[in-house]
Amino acid sequence: MRGAVLHAPGDIRVEERDDPTIINPTDAVIRVAATCVCGSDLWPYRGVEDVDGPAPMGHEYVGIVEEVGHDVHLVKPGQFVVGSFFASDNTCEICRAGYQSRCVHAELMGAIGTQSEYARIPLADGTLVATPGRPADDLVPSLLAASDVLGTGWFAAVAAEAGPGKTVAVVGDGAVGLLGVLAARRLGAERIIAVSRHEPRQQLAREFGATDIVTERGDDGVARIKDLTGGLGAHSVIEAVGTQESMMQANRSTRPGGHVGYVGVSHDVQLPGPELFFSGVHLHGGPAPVRRFLPQLIDLICRRDIDPGKVFDLTLPLGQAAEGYRAMDQRRAIKTLLQP
Amino acid sequence: MRGAVLHAPGDIRVEERDDPTIINPTDAVIRVAATCVCGSDLWPYRGVEDVDGPAPMGHEYVGIVEEVGHDVHLVKPGQFVVGSFFASDNTCEICRAGYQSRCVHAELMGAIGTQSEYARIPLADGTLVATPGRPADDLVPSLLAASDVLGTGWFAAVAAEAGPGKTVAVVGDGAVGLLGVLAARRLGAERIIAVSRHEPRQQLAREFGATDIVTERGDDGVARIKDLTGGLGAHSVIEAVGTQESMMQANRSTRPGGHVGYVGVSHDVQLPGPELFFSGVHLHGGPAPVRRFLPQLIDLICRRDIDPGKVFDLTLPLGQAAEGYRAMDQRRAIKTLLQP
Repeated sequence: MRGAVLHAPGDIRVEERDDPTIINPTDAVIRVAATCVCGSDLWPYRGVEDVDGPAPMGHEYVGIVEEVGHDVHLVKPGQFVVGSFFASDNTCEICRAGYQSRCVHAELMGAIGTQSEYARIPLADGTLVATPGRPADDLVPSLLAASDVLGTGWFAAVAAEAGPGKTVAVVGDGAVGLLGVLAARRLGAERIIAVSRHEPRQQLAREFGATDIVTERGDDGVARIKDLTGGLGAHSVIEAVGTQESMMQANRSTRPGGHVGYVGVSHDVQLPGPELFFSGVHLHGGPAPVRRFLPQLIDLICRRDIDPGKVFDLTLPLGQAAEGYRAMDQRRAIKTLLQP
Repeated sequence: MRGAVLHAPGDIRVEERDDPTIINPTDAVIRVAATCVCGSDLWPYRGVEDVDGPAPMGHEYVGIVEEVGHDVHLVKPGQFVVGSFFASDNTCEICRAGYQSRCVHAELMGAIGTQSEYARIPLADGTLVATPGRPADDLVPSLLAASDVLGTGWFAAVAAEAGPGKTVAVVGDGAVGLLGVLAARRLGAERIIAVSRHEPRQQLAREFGATDIVTERGDDGVARIKDLTGGLGAHSVIEAVGTQESMMQANRSTRPGGHVGYVGVSHDVQLPGPELFFSGVHLHGGPAPVRRFLPQLIDLICRRDIDPGKVFDLTLPLGQAAEGYRAMDQRRAIKTLLQP
């Protein structure tokens, strides 16, 4: 089969890879219907994260089950399925508490690489959720979004306790931040402040439910958000970048007793203890337990209540993955969908 | 009147101070019935925090209202009252959300100094809670504990979401940590692991409800807590020290999706973002909004349901404050009560 492989920073190639097979009896193999490039894929692409030899890429996927191992009982060949970027058994104590991304048997799908024609999915019964029947083609991008960026934005909004009567600020205008806006709206937030200086992203933020746009970053952004909230700060803040500046902007934009939901993969961040202590905020985040939300998100998408697939503003054949990465790296695209 | 003043690290003197008077119409003046030395008073006493000239000391107090300003309507002369270490209006949006320690009009009682015969209490209607009638003498230490250490331990347990079915670990065996044990028990925790290597404190922890004692600190302590929790870590961890080691021990002892409630005043702590991100824990803490809990805690104490006053293992006249500080500094006493 063909799949995307990162050879060195900036060097993505679509090349022949081994066809996946059932290795463990709890595995499934799926034919990938759609996959995409994640903001987090840009970290190794940009050389910020080390790459140790040629690395298969991708961890977002929807597809059709081709084959299952003999210990797979819930997932059947022929089903259209959505999974998360962590395979999880969905039965351990941590999964049952809703933290499937930290399942005691968790496996990172990024190590398998789903920017490819086929993919092996470990712990298939726990990891995959089938759609009700074969979805219409125009729903596929939204279902793909559920696999990571929607699930992650949703988790961030839940972690930030977005809800009725709340003012929610969203730091980061990538796909996750934008879908954090959508999630906050669906969770009933009264006011949603999106931080963005890019006009097309501002527009999508407004479509998803943002009521206010702040263009300033860092402490200027904090000051604007305080201005908009009677000097107190937002009740709930979503952090969807992962840098020192964005984390501090998020924490400082939150009122005492408020909640920060942070999902930007943290790089070189150090949180100053005394400032955090006196801020009185709640901090929760990390790799989103997307699996927790998949049944609800698939239902909302299949009933056409939400349209998160709008974050894909570039669709390319898998063979043009390199251009898909470049476009996102240069911020010409919010998110690239790849068709195997 | 006489009051304790810190002149330099290690140099506490009880000396003549001006009698407090009503400055603002929302003030009250109380005659202090009992006050005490806080673990946080040891930071400047030890020279870890700078002292800028002679500083009146103390922020914990119970007493009898002597006089009130003309805008005080709820608190009456003659009442026995308990207050927190932050004066708060209890009416602003932040107070109404339960974060009175970050009231928009908050005033730090430590700047006023309650290790003294009398004290001015700003925002008296918001700050002070009267007991039902004059309490019996033997209840006074417990009511005094409510003013800070009990309220702080209680907040830590609430922030850590201690409750039925939960395993709670408590890092720190000072008065706050010990009362965090008591709070976790009252909140219904199933199992409470106290981290302590001091036999008398271990014994008090057990009296307050600890089911297990761990004597190891740092990563050895983490390993022991993991051993006791099926390798997963505790659901809820209370941090009541405020150092880098204790914060990391608390975070690492918490299972993914679990809750850390941290109330040790943070000193020179830096939280590594990537580790925090992948831990998946909830982090909440800071200066406890003790006022939120005072009515409930006073009720529990007056009904003799809890006996937090046991943390006072040294009682001295105010004039011997210097010995009270020394005993706590040298860990000969858990907590010193001072009688004006």
